Amino acid sequence: MKQITSVQNPFIKSLVLLQEKSKARKQSGTFLIEGQREIELAQKGGYEIETILFLPEISSEVQAKKISRSAELIEISKEVYQKLAYRDTTEGILAIAKSKNLSLAALNLGENPLILVAEAPEKPGNIGAILRTADAANLDAVIIANPKSDMFNPNIVRSSVGCLFTNNIATGTTEEIIAFLKDKNISIYCATLQNSTGYHTQNYTTPTALVVGTEATGLTQEWRDNATQNIIIPMQGAIDSMNVSVAAAILIFEAKRQRGF
Amino acid sequence: MKQITSVQNPFIKSLVLLQEKSKARKQSGTFLIEGQREIELAQKGGYEIETILFLPEISSEVQAKKISRSAELIEISKEVYQKLAYRDTTEGILAIAKSKNLSLAALNLGENPLILVAEAPEKPGNIGAILRTADAANLDAVIIANPKSDMFNPNIVRSSVGCLFTNNIATGTTEEIIAFLKDKNISIYCATLQNSTGYHTQNYTTPTALVVGTEATGLTQEWRDNATQNIIIPMQGAIDSMNVSVAAAILIFEAKRQRGF
Repeated sequence: MKQITSVQNPFIKSLVLLQEKSKARKQSGTFLIEGQREIELAQKGGYEIETILFLPEISSEVQAKKISRSAELIEISKEVYQKLAYRDTTEGILAIAKSKNLSLAALNLGENPLILVAEAPEKPGNIGAILRTADAANLDAVIIANPKSDMFNPNIVRSSVGCLFTNNIATGTTEEIIAFLKDKNISIYCATLQNSTGYHTQNYTTPTALVVGTEATGLTQEWRDNATQNIIIPMQGAIDSMNVSVAAAILIFEAKRQRGF
Repeated sequence: MKQITSVQNPFIKSLVLLQEKSKARKQSGTFLIEGQREIELAQKGGYEIETILFLPEISSEVQAKKISRSAELIEISKEVYQKLAYRDTTEGILAIAKSKNLSLAALNLGENPLILVAEAPEKPGNIGAILRTADAANLDAVIIANPKSDMFNPNIVRSSVGCLFTNNIATGTTEEIIAFLKDKNISIYCATLQNSTGYHTQNYTTPTALVVGTEATGLTQEWRDNATQNIIIPMQGAIDSMNVSVAAAILIFEAKRQRGF
């Protein structure tokens, strides 16, 4: 089996670039995943695992082979592992996976879809949190409009705790997504202040897309103009500030409640 | 006006300790707040502002005096400011505030209270997120059971974006809080897997405490034994994992919906 012990190894350097540069991920069509469970979920979610790197002190060849019998195995040193891994509580295992096509056309929706759309979320951690909630709610899809980074950004991979792989995900421009939703007769409910009504007064039991914007600037005019209805979560506090993943969760679970889970 | 330019100044060193050590905060009965808006919210929330430190390049004496006319003003250098401040996007203003009594006995509840209880939240950021949601919902109180740090931890202060000061907050042991709620005839709904029913099937229009545990281990047996009803958010995904602040928000806003906001 191949062994790599030096962080100066050109292959390891290329993996560091995968962690750091969106461009490197796009050019190679690959990205890194950390953790046994996350890699297993990726495999289960149809991601092709090309290579597994493991640190024999913590993980093992047996564990690596449990995930994939076809992936190349590489034993790495602690130094190399620490160079590549993000987490404090480490599991000693990493994988190189092939990126997936996240186009709208590739989405498989159910008959009565419930979809979340998030426009340009500022923080990878917010996308991760949204993906966790979307997994729990078994949404038909999560669509990111005008994303600020590619979805295989290590901060998204990590903060989603594997839910990047369990959800149906697509990205696109706001314009493309609006056209997609209209074409499929999916109602568009935009979380926004302007001309809006309480989210709890609307009916989400038919094909529904819930759309949330950024915490700082909300949704763009384009979304508001194309909404079936603009909705608002009534805010009664001293501060008009709600985390975007929290707002998304409140909307998603109201829809789930109406649909009887 | 007093000016401090050296990070070696003993007073500045004592402020660094306030940021870093719970013990220092407890002994002095003070803590640090960062940002104009946060300091204003603290003042409005009845916190006594003892001292305001400002960096003249970014903030000013005028801005400091807008917050408090009685607080001592200290002009600090960039070096000192960077030593004390956490944020990237800095506002050049910090305050030393007196801590408040967060005992259960000091809580002022309305006639038909809606309360959130969080047991031993692992991360300060989760407490901050919960406080933001609690502010938006205008809860009667947020109670932290068996807290892992004091509430004036800088990570809590920061992540709450001022909602530490706009909420009624108490801390106590699980035992004390259960006795408190029972004494006040407040129904206890515990978010837990065991012997639970869907959260959306319960009535939260009478005095209600919603209780959430940690992501890793959930609630302790003591809470479950004393619940009016154990409740669960139905999870239909591949992963049984929901952020505690997201779970709290779903429960809180279902209660708010039932109460007609």
